[in-house]
Amino acid sequence: MRIVQKYGGTSVGTLERIRKTADIVQGELERGNQVAVVVSAMSGETNRLLALAFEVSDAPATRELDAMVATGEQVSAALLAMELQTRGIKAYSFNGAQAGFKTDSSFVRARITDVQSDHLIERMERFEVPVVTGFQGIDASGNITTLGRGGSDTSAVALAIAVKADVCDIYTDVDGIYTTDPRIVSRAQKMDQISFEEMLEFASLGAKVLQTRSVELAMRYNMPIHLRSSFDLVPGTMVTTEDEKMERAAISGVAYNRDEAKITLKEIPDHPGIASSVFGPVAEAGINVDVIVQNVSEKGHTDITFTVPRSDYAQTMKIMAGISKDIGASDLKGDNTVAKVSVIGVGMRSHAGVAQKMFQVLAAEGVNIQMITTSEIKITVVIDEKYVELAVRALHGAFGLDREQAAT
Amino acid sequence: MRIVQKYGGTSVGTLERIRKTADIVQGELERGNQVAVVVSAMSGETNRLLALAFEVSDAPATRELDAMVATGEQVSAALLAMELQTRGIKAYSFNGAQAGFKTDSSFVRARITDVQSDHLIERMERFEVPVVTGFQGIDASGNITTLGRGGSDTSAVALAIAVKADVCDIYTDVDGIYTTDPRIVSRAQKMDQISFEEMLEFASLGAKVLQTRSVELAMRYNMPIHLRSSFDLVPGTMVTTEDEKMERAAISGVAYNRDEAKITLKEIPDHPGIASSVFGPVAEAGINVDVIVQNVSEKGHTDITFTVPRSDYAQTMKIMAGISKDIGASDLKGDNTVAKVSVIGVGMRSHAGVAQKMFQVLAAEGVNIQMITTSEIKITVVIDEKYVELAVRALHGAFGLDREQAAT
Repeated sequence: MRIVQKYGGTSVGTLERIRKTADIVQGELERGNQVAVVVSAMSGETNRLLALAFEVSDAPATRELDAMVATGEQVSAALLAMELQTRGIKAYSFNGAQAGFKTDSSFVRARITDVQSDHLIERMERFEVPVVTGFQGIDASGNITTLGRGGSDTSAVALAIAVKADVCDIYTDVDGIYTTDPRIVSRAQKMDQISFEEMLEFASLGAKVLQTRSVELAMRYNMPIHLRSSFDLVPGTMVTTEDEKMERAAISGVAYNRDEAKITLKEIPDHPGIASSVFGPVAEAGINVDVIVQNVSEKGHTDITFTVPRSDYAQTMKIMAGISKDIGASDLKGDNTVAKVSVIGVGMRSHAGVAQKMFQVLAAEGVNIQMITTSEIKITVVIDEKYVELAVRALHGAFGLDREQAAT
Repeated sequence: MRIVQKYGGTSVGTLERIRKTADIVQGELERGNQVAVVVSAMSGETNRLLALAFEVSDAPATRELDAMVATGEQVSAALLAMELQTRGIKAYSFNGAQAGFKTDSSFVRARITDVQSDHLIERMERFEVPVVTGFQGIDASGNITTLGRGGSDTSAVALAIAVKADVCDIYTDVDGIYTTDPRIVSRAQKMDQISFEEMLEFASLGAKVLQTRSVELAMRYNMPIHLRSSFDLVPGTMVTTEDEKMERAAISGVAYNRDEAKITLKEIPDHPGIASSVFGPVAEAGINVDVIVQNVSEKGHTDITFTVPRSDYAQTMKIMAGISKDIGASDLKGDNTVAKVSVIGVGMRSHAGVAQKMFQVLAAEGVNIQMITTSEIKITVVIDEKYVELAVRALHGAFGLDREQAAT
């Protein structure tokens, strides 16, 4: 089997952890597998470098920022290669340029355009181990670029695609994706398998285990991602295409996010362009609007409600205070004690009544639903924050996700 | 004028120093000059990285060591470029690969084979400032290589040659080369100019201001080096080809080195191969032998005396104790309280009697000469360490090097 492994900053953060990581690589080679590795910078290193840059300037030149920050992975890649070599393994580090990662020229948030890694395939076939710097590449002019925070996941998937790997193993400090947060529901279960589409929904809902871009890329090229723990070498969660043979439950998991604040503009005169008058200034301020609900117009007026991250609540309210008068809203209301709960599952497509069941379960628990938004494989409700645990537990049970309790 | 400037680790070691360095670059641009900069790593950074590597392994893979250590300059180059950009100067960092530094594949001590920097010339002509990482390059296979300690001087000279600069300004914490150590002779003078050949002799005598390789390279391509202080922007010492118009004193300076130990093998049977029997094992132990004197053979026997750095004295004596019996020496003697004093000057070529005068001066001071060795532009004597100051002062005065005392 040909495997691309990705390790995050904590897996190369100390020499002890580097040795543990090398153990895993060595194990795969001993099982006869071909291995390439993608690494992040040692934990803390990227922040150390950024701090240096921001001491020089409040707005350091992004080209230089990238050249600087990219060194973090070069150091950790070299250290891991050294450690592997002490074990007699032919391991060699490659930075973005050396590994053939071509990107566009958007410094600080570059996108990969091509990975020219045929020379790494040859090495893997000889059971040499390329240790590649994550998070970076070079543009067409040879400038060093970085992919933005968490970009190493994307690097790993892109490399796996380029070297025609069978799987991209992403090692992290959790052992997989759970049906919901085990801190809230003790009977949450680790999923053996999840579809790319579901993983995207989980990722966008704040399950910070995989960068969204990496999942999109894997989906496009159908590259299975094995999300697993570097502490405990048991199988984790395989992120892959939907398997038709699988008997699927209606939903595969329940996600939530407390980082929500809700803002409502009442009775706005409803005419074309009104939405852009509201959301234009929010976008210009760099604030990400999440859920948006607009009621059916009544007597030429409509209400608009939307959510933003809680940290942006104060600023958004300030912007709205200015706008609401200009556009003739009758009232402006805000609430920063709301939360979002979602049920997710590709099974939803073929199971009618998931939404209906969700609303019944919440009603039975006395949870008032403030907003609803749906996609093909997800239903999200906005509720009062204080009901989050109650709602998650009730939904997890009602949709049959609770693990069987072991007989004791 | 087109200038390549080189700054060492202390000049980019703190943000305050980076600003000072940017001041100097800015000053040259304002005078209408074209500037490229070569930088070392921030002081302490190379050692930090090496320490990390040696924690992984006692003998880390040298390819990986180079990939790791080379990041130090990439960080300082980016920081300086950022600082220059905050002043509206178009400055861009370039690592070894980007700047076109090609080397052989001798990791840790690579030699530059070619510098393909035409793209930097174009930038300089537009008054952009390339900030190039010193100390590194890539080999023909694209592996990252480093030039060995102090290699940044060599990088700077090589870049100056490649971009056809008028001069290579090497900024350091001293303001030039002195006729002798001002701590010993208060009337020592800063030399305005010194020939490459003399500089080579000074460098090999422990004047640690310029790496020998960089002087050799500058000499081969006739690239003037301006050695100057980054603290005080007065002219320093220009290292250049010998100028026939210059009225030259017989000697240009007096150098000394206390780091010497002397070892004598007495009455060795003199036959072909005897020198290699003595020095082979010393070389194998990685010890640099400096002065070697072998007396004329007498009755088939000869004495060999040589010097080594004082830190290698004990180990060398141990090696000699083993050898001296094998080769039939009658006695083995050692002395680690000797020192070396040299007079240097291209003027020596046309001034007869320099050696004679040197010996007279030392005799008049009661200094016994233990060994003598000469080159075309240098005479070195080995003397008892306790006479070093006396000898240096006497020679400095006798050869007319004392600065005129200011009338007060």
